[in-house]
Amino acid sequence: MLTLTPVFRVLGALLIAFSAFMLLPLLVSPSPFHQPGGAFMLSALATAFSGLALIALSPSSGSFELTRRQGFLLTALAWTILPAFGALPLLGSELSAADAYFEAVSAMTTTGSTVMTGLDREAPSILLWRSLMQAIGGVGVIVLGIIMMPFLRVGGMQLFHTESSDRSEKIVAKAFDLAAWIFGVFVALTMACAAVYHILGMHWFDAINHALTTVSTGGFSTHDASFAYFDDASLMWAATIFMLAGALPFVAFIRFARGKYRAFFTDIQMRGFLTFLAAAILLVALTRFVRSEIPFLQSLTTSAFNIVSVVTTTGYASEDYQLWGPFAVGVFFILTFVGGCSGSTAGGVKIYRFQILGRLAAAHLSRIVSPSRVHPVLYHDRKVEDEVAFSILSFLVILLFSLIVSTFLLAWLGVDLLTALTGSATALANVGPGLGDVIGPAGNFATLPAAAKWILSFMMILGRLEFFTVLVLLTPAFWRA
Amino acid sequence: MLTLTPVFRVLGALLIAFSAFMLLPLLVSPSPFHQPGGAFMLSALATAFSGLALIALSPSSGSFELTRRQGFLLTALAWTILPAFGALPLLGSELSAADAYFEAVSAMTTTGSTVMTGLDREAPSILLWRSLMQAIGGVGVIVLGIIMMPFLRVGGMQLFHTESSDRSEKIVAKAFDLAAWIFGVFVALTMACAAVYHILGMHWFDAINHALTTVSTGGFSTHDASFAYFDDASLMWAATIFMLAGALPFVAFIRFARGKYRAFFTDIQMRGFLTFLAAAILLVALTRFVRSEIPFLQSLTTSAFNIVSVVTTTGYASEDYQLWGPFAVGVFFILTFVGGCSGSTAGGVKIYRFQILGRLAAAHLSRIVSPSRVHPVLYHDRKVEDEVAFSILSFLVILLFSLIVSTFLLAWLGVDLLTALTGSATALANVGPGLGDVIGPAGNFATLPAAAKWILSFMMILGRLEFFTVLVLLTPAFWRA
Repeated sequence: MLTLTPVFRVLGALLIAFSAFMLLPLLVSPSPFHQPGGAFMLSALATAFSGLALIALSPSSGSFELTRRQGFLLTALAWTILPAFGALPLLGSELSAADAYFEAVSAMTTTGSTVMTGLDREAPSILLWRSLMQAIGGVGVIVLGIIMMPFLRVGGMQLFHTESSDRSEKIVAKAFDLAAWIFGVFVALTMACAAVYHILGMHWFDAINHALTTVSTGGFSTHDASFAYFDDASLMWAATIFMLAGALPFVAFIRFARGKYRAFFTDIQMRGFLTFLAAAILLVALTRFVRSEIPFLQSLTTSAFNIVSVVTTTGYASEDYQLWGPFAVGVFFILTFVGGCSGSTAGGVKIYRFQILGRLAAAHLSRIVSPSRVHPVLYHDRKVEDEVAFSILSFLVILLFSLIVSTFLLAWLGVDLLTALTGSATALANVGPGLGDVIGPAGNFATLPAAAKWILSFMMILGRLEFFTVLVLLTPAFWRA
Repeated sequence: MLTLTPVFRVLGALLIAFSAFMLLPLLVSPSPFHQPGGAFMLSALATAFSGLALIALSPSSGSFELTRRQGFLLTALAWTILPAFGALPLLGSELSAADAYFEAVSAMTTTGSTVMTGLDREAPSILLWRSLMQAIGGVGVIVLGIIMMPFLRVGGMQLFHTESSDRSEKIVAKAFDLAAWIFGVFVALTMACAAVYHILGMHWFDAINHALTTVSTGGFSTHDASFAYFDDASLMWAATIFMLAGALPFVAFIRFARGKYRAFFTDIQMRGFLTFLAAAILLVALTRFVRSEIPFLQSLTTSAFNIVSVVTTTGYASEDYQLWGPFAVGVFFILTFVGGCSGSTAGGVKIYRFQILGRLAAAHLSRIVSPSRVHPVLYHDRKVEDEVAFSILSFLVILLFSLIVSTFLLAWLGVDLLTALTGSATALANVGPGLGDVIGPAGNFATLPAAAKWILSFMMILGRLEFFTVLVLLTPAFWRA
């Protein structure tokens, strides 16, 4: 039997903590008793009450333990239910239920697709709440990637798993310690980012909001024009660097903060990531420089900013890069899937999977040539076990199938193919903008049918939780065993 | 060391046989000494001479043996060099080298994308040659799928491999026997198809040409308008049935011809294929019936014809199905990848891979839920070995990467994203038409840049040979070992 008590207790605790964050937007709200402040008061109360009720209804069994099955359920519930509460304050902002949930899911999965327009005239409390949800989601995702996924052995993440046993008090203690470090590093990076943004010319409110959505690689902005509003090269480079930081393995930052400086520069994943980005940026910058008349430095700045924005799955735009020509459109479509490093806030397929896939492909071809020889696959000096290889291949295949199903459903709802395809891709990879006139970097998800928004919300969660975490819940075996 | 002698001898023999087929178009040519007949005479001579030269330069070593490595090389060479000779007669027809090679590769991979316009006014000999190349390619592909691929252990095809040892006189003898059966069944089906087409109203010339390109699931037509030229429901249903026949496992036909009638109806792959098609056809037909004003029978006829055309990777079109609405466009994009059964003339991912993938996914999810239990995967009452599972997953991943690389290269050349993406997909899956205004069912590949035609030619061959056969040749180990 699957005992739900510990799941509900943790979920309750998460809701209570979440409700506390809901009070922060009141700092930039004229009054807590009038709109939109009132919405935050009511939402915080409802969230806290729900959390308390969940805990009250789930009697403690003494020591805290979590089985893998409970872990799956908790993860999936946290990423579906927290956004539902996070959407409450937005309902006051003239959004429908589908719109508000889409916006909250987009925030907490750090996707950054938006259905809201007129951001420049929006209440500061609403804007801050959107940014805060991205930051909370960002921390959540790192905890998920570094602590939860290896424990659940999902999607090849077990490669980064160092513990041998599944449950023990010691692991829980270590997990809390690690979570505290993650939170600390995240806050430090965000504060540094906000300070740099302010120094380079942003108002404090814009600086803090964009810092929250930069380090979390979420990509919400306080302006409809996104980063194009600022139109400043130094701000774009600052954002590029902090988006990159958000897409690097947080374990490396923690090691760095603990004084292990060398570990930071020898990380094989980080090297692959930065090499790939440098190559992509140079290619696009040079192509634009040669084919159009723009100066090289300008081409480099805008190429770097927008490519890093898409690959780190942030989703800021400094301009409509679809106007750079068919070549750029093709490149950005492909870059949508790449993603950052494991244990970061970035989504997508992620670099380590590509690195291992490359090694697997080489080994597979060698095996075809000489079937009798042994062809071990190494990553980070560790042997890639068959189970990990299989997980990574399955991840890609399931991503592909989800893309197909989502594209099909959206097309069925009357959405054009380009919007259906790139909207599904951007949701599954948690990037933000799609391609085309509707949901491109200059567009908005507002005009999609409500059903499409529910589908895309599910796809964002599916992608964020790396598929298996959600899909196991759909197997009868999960509930029977 | 890799001995090339047997490879060259077989290739030489194939060229000589190929040159004999080149004389057939002379039957519908006014004179063998004037254009276009002269082109066929010269091409046949050049091809035969090249074949003889290859054999003369490769002294026989007595008994005939072929190692796996030689098999890979032979397969890849046959599918790149035969189209080069097949393109020769087309060069006389005002086509550039890129256009002629593209057209010949498209024919011999049974893809059916065309760069030729004005087919209705084209010389009959040229039209017949295009159809003949598709039929030759079709037989070649079945031989490849039933005999060569299992021998090479590529792409999970070893699942259908019943022999235990790799080389022996007996296997060669059995292979020749099997190849003769394949040829016989193919010719019988083609003759039946031509007869039905003629009875239902086609001229003999059109009937024979379309029969050659129907059973081979190639899709070349003798009219620019493709099947829309005939505009006849009974002809469409006849074509639907014979396209289906071309996409069914030929082994089942051979068993049927040998009197094993039951084997035909118990094939698990065939059942899955027909069920999938029935569902897709009904879904599209009903959607069109409900959403637009067309009668249900007409909706059913055109839906069945065009869906079967794309899924069997034939590529005929009875109308521009892009006008059926965004839903149909999304469906046809997805259907491009599906493909027919193994050991048929159809391309694409193929049904058995989907069936095994579904079983693998279920087993993977069960393993996540209960890691300690054993989760065997069965197909056709056989255990799917890890090696097969890995091959099939790798197949999908490499298809995906090829799609990305091809899309990227085409976009780089200035091709718009929809054309680049669906053109790459239709080439890799050997379907024929893409989507959009340029290469859609009402369009043509003629306007693409020459470099794009070379790239797509390579992708057609890559997809036709199921990737690994070509990719192993690119590994240093293949040439070193």
